[in-house]
Amino acid sequence: MTTAETTSTAIPERGFTDDEFEARTRRSQTMMADAGMAALLVCTEPEVRYFTGFHTPFWQSPTRPWFVVVPAAGKPIAVIPSIGAASMSATWIDDVRTWSSPQPHDDGVTLLLDCLREVAGSGRVGLPMGPETHVRMPLADVDRVRSERTDVVDATDIIRSLRMVKSEAEIAKHRHICGLVSNAFDELPSLLSTGMTERQAFAAFRGEILRQGADDVPYLVGATGPGGIDDIIRQPSDRPIADGDLLIFDTGSTFDGYFSDFDRNFAFTHAEQDAKDAYRAVWEATEAGLEACRPGATTTQVFGAMNEVLKANGSLGNDVGRMGHGLGMQVTEWPSHTDSDDTVIQENMVLTLEPGLLWAPGKAMVHEENLVVRADGPELLSRRATPELPII
Amino acid sequence: MTTAETTSTAIPERGFTDDEFEARTRRSQTMMADAGMAALLVCTEPEVRYFTGFHTPFWQSPTRPWFVVVPAAGKPIAVIPSIGAASMSATWIDDVRTWSSPQPHDDGVTLLLDCLREVAGSGRVGLPMGPETHVRMPLADVDRVRSERTDVVDATDIIRSLRMVKSEAEIAKHRHICGLVSNAFDELPSLLSTGMTERQAFAAFRGEILRQGADDVPYLVGATGPGGIDDIIRQPSDRPIADGDLLIFDTGSTFDGYFSDFDRNFAFTHAEQDAKDAYRAVWEATEAGLEACRPGATTTQVFGAMNEVLKANGSLGNDVGRMGHGLGMQVTEWPSHTDSDDTVIQENMVLTLEPGLLWAPGKAMVHEENLVVRADGPELLSRRATPELPII
Repeated sequence: MTTAETTSTAIPERGFTDDEFEARTRRSQTMMADAGMAALLVCTEPEVRYFTGFHTPFWQSPTRPWFVVVPAAGKPIAVIPSIGAASMSATWIDDVRTWSSPQPHDDGVTLLLDCLREVAGSGRVGLPMGPETHVRMPLADVDRVRSERTDVVDATDIIRSLRMVKSEAEIAKHRHICGLVSNAFDELPSLLSTGMTERQAFAAFRGEILRQGADDVPYLVGATGPGGIDDIIRQPSDRPIADGDLLIFDTGSTFDGYFSDFDRNFAFTHAEQDAKDAYRAVWEATEAGLEACRPGATTTQVFGAMNEVLKANGSLGNDVGRMGHGLGMQVTEWPSHTDSDDTVIQENMVLTLEPGLLWAPGKAMVHEENLVVRADGPELLSRRATPELPII
Repeated sequence: MTTAETTSTAIPERGFTDDEFEARTRRSQTMMADAGMAALLVCTEPEVRYFTGFHTPFWQSPTRPWFVVVPAAGKPIAVIPSIGAASMSATWIDDVRTWSSPQPHDDGVTLLLDCLREVAGSGRVGLPMGPETHVRMPLADVDRVRSERTDVVDATDIIRSLRMVKSEAEIAKHRHICGLVSNAFDELPSLLSTGMTERQAFAAFRGEILRQGADDVPYLVGATGPGGIDDIIRQPSDRPIADGDLLIFDTGSTFDGYFSDFDRNFAFTHAEQDAKDAYRAVWEATEAGLEACRPGATTTQVFGAMNEVLKANGSLGNDVGRMGHGLGMQVTEWPSHTDSDDTVIQENMVLTLEPGLLWAPGKAMVHEENLVVRADGPELLSRRATPELPII
C-alpha cells in the first residue's frame, strides 16, 4: 500500500495565486455553460471564499448577507456589505459592490437583483439548493429574489464537483495542519493524567494544537468514560478522568482556513480486552478503507470494505450514519462513505476514513484518518494511529 | 451614571436549570398563541440550543439538518440525526426523534413533516424568515416542506423578542467571559512589542484569553497599520509591528456558549495627535451611548447620542453600518444601533456600544464595550477602556 507517512515540513504559503482563482472560475463557467446558466449565485462562507479568497471569521455574525455572482465569463462580482469593502478589495476581485448594512427593509436584495439582471439578463441563475447546502440569507429575501427571477435552478452539482477535488496548494495546507495535529496528539500522553477533569484535558489539548502552530481549533469534541464512551460529539464536563477510562478526542483544526479532521483514542492505566479488540477492529477497518480508496472506486465500495471488517468483528452498528467524508474549507464536505453514496473517487480528493462501531450497548469506538487520493492510492495526511490502543 | 465596574469572580454554573428552558418555551407558546401558530420550527444552532440546551460545535459540519418543533403546549420535540441522539437525550427534552443521516434523498424531511402533522394538524407553522435569520437546510427541502404545508409563516418576531432579553443566568455567563477578556486585554502591553508580526501578536492574545479561562476564541480580528487602520475585520498577516503603528484587536470569546464582543486599540511607542483625538472621540461617544442606553429609550436614540459626538469631532463616517448590537449565543444578535432601527431598549438586554469613525481617509477608529441594561441604566460587562489611547 502506498500510504506514505507525512511529516510536517515548511509552512505553506498563505492564500492562493490569482491563477488558482482564475482556474476555479473557468471550471465553474464551463459547467455553467453546459447547464445553460447565465450566472451562478453563492452566499455562504466557503463558497464566497472559494471564488474570491475573502477570509474572515466575520461570517459568525448572522446580521448581514454576502453575495458573489459568477458571470458566464470574466471575474466573479462581490455584492457585499460595506464593512467588507476593504478586505474584499484586497482580493483578486475587481468588481466590489457594497451597501450599508444592516438595512432590514432591503439588505442587499435590490443590489443583488440589479447585478443579476446586468450579468444574466433574463437567463438562468444557478444557486446551490441540494444536499449539504443552505442559502445564507433570510428566507423572505430568497422569496423576493425568486419572485423576480423565476429561472433560479439548483447548482449544487457544480459547487460540489469543483470543491471535492483539491489543488496542490490546498492539499499543502491540509498536509500542514494534519501534521501539526499529529504532533499535538503525540504529546497527549505527557499532557494528560488521571485526576484531571475533561475540561482541563480539553484545554491542554487545545493549547498544544495552537502551540504546534495551528491557526485555530474550531472543532474539538471528545469524551471520557469508564471502559467506554457513549457519545462522540460531546463537550467537556467537570468529570475527573479515572483509572480504566477511555478517552476520545476528535478535532477539526485549521491552517489558513483548511481543516484537519481526525481523532485518537486512549485508555488510562489499563483497558478491558473488549475495548482493545474494538480499537483493533476499527484500525483494521481503516486499513481496508485505505486499500479500497483509489481513483475509480466509489465511496460506497470504501464504505463496504470498512463495514465488512467491522461486521466480522461483531459490530453492533453505529449512530454516525457514514464512515468518513470529504474535507476542505469545512470540517466535513461532500462526499460521504455510505452504503448508497456511490460517488466515484477521483485523484486529489481529500477524504477522511472514519469507521466506527458499538462494541457493547452505549460503548462506541471510532477511528479517523485523513488522506489525499493519488493516482496509485491514498497518501496519508494524518500520522497513522498505532495498531493497538495506547495506554497512558 | 450607574456603570458599575465588573470584576470576574466565581465561575458561573454551566448549562441552565430546566426552569429556564420551561420559561423560554412558555413565553414562546404565549406568543405563538397570539400569532395563531400551532407550532414553531427552528433549525439553526442558537435557536436549537435556546430551546433544548443542545450544545456542540458539530454544527460546523454542513452535512446534516437539525430540527426542533415547539408545539402549542408541552416540551419541544427534537427531530435530529441519530449522531446527536445521546447528546440530545441528555438535555431536558424527552421526545427525540432520529434518522440515520446523511440520507440525501430524504434527510429528515419526512420525519419532520410527520412531526408537524402530528403536532400542528393543518394549523399554521412559524419559521424565522426575517432579518438576521436563515433556514439551515437545503432550499430544495424547504420547498418540499412548504409544498406540503402551505401555512408556513414568519416567526422572526417571536425568536427575536425572546432572545433579545437575557435571564440572570445568561447575564452571569456574559459577565464572566467579558471579565476574562478584560483581564487578557490588560496583559497585552506585556505580551506585545514592536518587531512581532501581526500573526504572532494574534497567537499571543488568543493564548492569553484561553489562559484566563475562556472556553474558546471563535472570533478574533484585528490589524496594525502605520498611524492608522483601514480594515477592522481582517485576519493577521506577517507584517511586523513597527514604531508608530496602531493596533486594534476585536474578539468574540465564549464561556459556556455565550459571547463577549469588544475591542481595544493601542499605539506602539508613539501616536499622532490626530489618532489620539480620534480615540478620545470614540471614547466620548461611548460615554454618550452609556448615558442614553436605558429602558424605554430606542436603539436609534442611542445611535443618535453617539453619532452626535462623532460628528462634532469631525467624523468622515464609517463603513460598519451600525454602532453596536445585541450580544448573546452569537457574536452579534438583534437589535442594531442604527439611524432607523428604533427597537425599544428593555431591562436585561445585553448590548454592545460600538461607535466608529474615519478620522482620515482609510484610517478608522472603533471602540466597543459590552453592557447589560438595568432599570436605572447600563451595567458594564467589559472593563471600561482608558479615556486616552494607550501606548505600548
